[in-house]
Amino acid sequence: MEVLFTFELKDHQKERLLTKFPQVSFRYSKKTLKQEIEKANVIVTYGGDLDTALLESAKSLEWLMVASAGVEKMPLAEIAEKELVMTNVRGIHKTPMAESVLAHILALKRSLPLIYKRQQTREWNRQVGSTELKGSTALILGPGAIGSEIGRLLQAFGVRTIGCNRSGRVSESMDEMIVFDRLLTKLPEADYIISVLPSTSDTKGLLTEGHFKAMKETAVFMNFGRGDLVDESILIEALKNEVIGHAVLDVFETEPLAEENELWALPNCTVSPHVSSLSGNYVERALIIFEENLEKWLQGDRNLRNLIDLEKGY
Amino acid sequence: MEVLFTFELKDHQKERLLTKFPQVSFRYSKKTLKQEIEKANVIVTYGGDLDTALLESAKSLEWLMVASAGVEKMPLAEIAEKELVMTNVRGIHKTPMAESVLAHILALKRSLPLIYKRQQTREWNRQVGSTELKGSTALILGPGAIGSEIGRLLQAFGVRTIGCNRSGRVSESMDEMIVFDRLLTKLPEADYIISVLPSTSDTKGLLTEGHFKAMKETAVFMNFGRGDLVDESILIEALKNEVIGHAVLDVFETEPLAEENELWALPNCTVSPHVSSLSGNYVERALIIFEENLEKWLQGDRNLRNLIDLEKGY
Repeated sequence: MEVLFTFELKDHQKERLLTKFPQVSFRYSKKTLKQEIEKANVIVTYGGDLDTALLESAKSLEWLMVASAGVEKMPLAEIAEKELVMTNVRGIHKTPMAESVLAHILALKRSLPLIYKRQQTREWNRQVGSTELKGSTALILGPGAIGSEIGRLLQAFGVRTIGCNRSGRVSESMDEMIVFDRLLTKLPEADYIISVLPSTSDTKGLLTEGHFKAMKETAVFMNFGRGDLVDESILIEALKNEVIGHAVLDVFETEPLAEENELWALPNCTVSPHVSSLSGNYVERALIIFEENLEKWLQGDRNLRNLIDLEKGY
Repeated sequence: MEVLFTFELKDHQKERLLTKFPQVSFRYSKKTLKQEIEKANVIVTYGGDLDTALLESAKSLEWLMVASAGVEKMPLAEIAEKELVMTNVRGIHKTPMAESVLAHILALKRSLPLIYKRQQTREWNRQVGSTELKGSTALILGPGAIGSEIGRLLQAFGVRTIGCNRSGRVSESMDEMIVFDRLLTKLPEADYIISVLPSTSDTKGLLTEGHFKAMKETAVFMNFGRGDLVDESILIEALKNEVIGHAVLDVFETEPLAEENELWALPNCTVSPHVSSLSGNYVERALIIFEENLEKWLQGDRNLRNLIDLEKGY
């Protein structure tokens, strides 16, 4: 049994794997060499390094473990054709992502950008225009593990939560659930529109000009899912014309965001360089899921945690 | 019955008072004129405008309602001598203050100051060093209404809370309670030390150099109570020598903070111009408490909400 990591682990993590799984041979290689790929039964990757050509060489591969949440850039059709088992680490992002979303919401509500700015010029000015988050309404697009965690925290602050997904299936920590089709009628109620949707054929371009027009003039739109949820030019127009109040963007159509992109300079837009899921605990949490699944795998149990439906793409 | 407000209300608020209390005469005067003071049975004030001389002229005064939390700048001895009833609005600050405290904590944890700074120079750099709040420990000095609300929210984020007050009396949303005397032994456990203490003879200069030395090198000290909790020079030295990681200060020994004060420019210090309790709902909430108390007063009930113990000063 050969397991290939396409990234490095810390020594204590490598030792733990050896102790727990003496029957398994682990290799670590940032450069994925062809002969290592050929032998590997399991590949653990962040996803970006795995293209169709490499996958072609992976003749012994049975299980692909992606240490990331989004898999939209991976060759899903080829993976399905090869009948590979594919898992990801969804769920491990929920804590850092929910903390990031709450950080941005509270920072805007309690005027932190202005407070920071005035500190630079030593300006003591108590006119900061802070208001309270309590009593607001948030609409959460994609209330899975991450969205529900955001909902749970928002509810603790006294925020009403509306979850929105494709099926309308009930989700935790949502006061109300709606389906995508009912978005337009619900948007006028929301002070915060927060997307943590993955990129799928259902979500690409889901938000149109009409959706932004339906939002409150003071609404804060937060995209922490994937940049292709909305055409960037629609978003830029909505911000320039103050159709909505503010946007906080952690994801973009093209990343890194080009230096000449207008979004950087809009006063009502916060540009975050796709960092909301980062956390010092990331790799360790990914390993916990991997170890749990590897144990099952070795016992012949293929009902792994975080299996990806290759057709749906999540 | 004469009630004098030393600040203005909105028209709809004035009308509500007239409708609810037809037997009362309300006056509103930013400049407290002597003849109005003389007649007033009740004075509603933010506190700053009431000095000993004015109090001397208030010959009909029975009840002093302070629409603020701290009363340390008021002539408490004279108020006690005149046997006045005094109430404040403690409790109404809890929502905006707790939201401000959480905003600052999460902003630091999720690297918002750095993200904002890099946006100015259009720098896409994913090395931001964000970590998670979950699993941290917070020590809250003064777990009353505000401190408990901070504790409740921190617990929702998976933070362990230690409350610290003079008596050690159990407080809500605290995993543990300690008395002031045990501070030195508990400080090494805390990632966040958050003070919302009022200024009293017990709290002035409560934190010494030794306390800062007992804190973690990474500790974040947050003063949202009163500036005289710690000698400013001790705090400045602790920050300059990186004895602690960061300070977030909403209160200062002297306010406004002087332009030449070193705190403005320390990279590990956030200066907030005493705005954490501000909220668009402030006056309305103060009025709700006032109206409740006025109803009692008119019925001869002197057991008012938020009575101040003039000896303790809170």
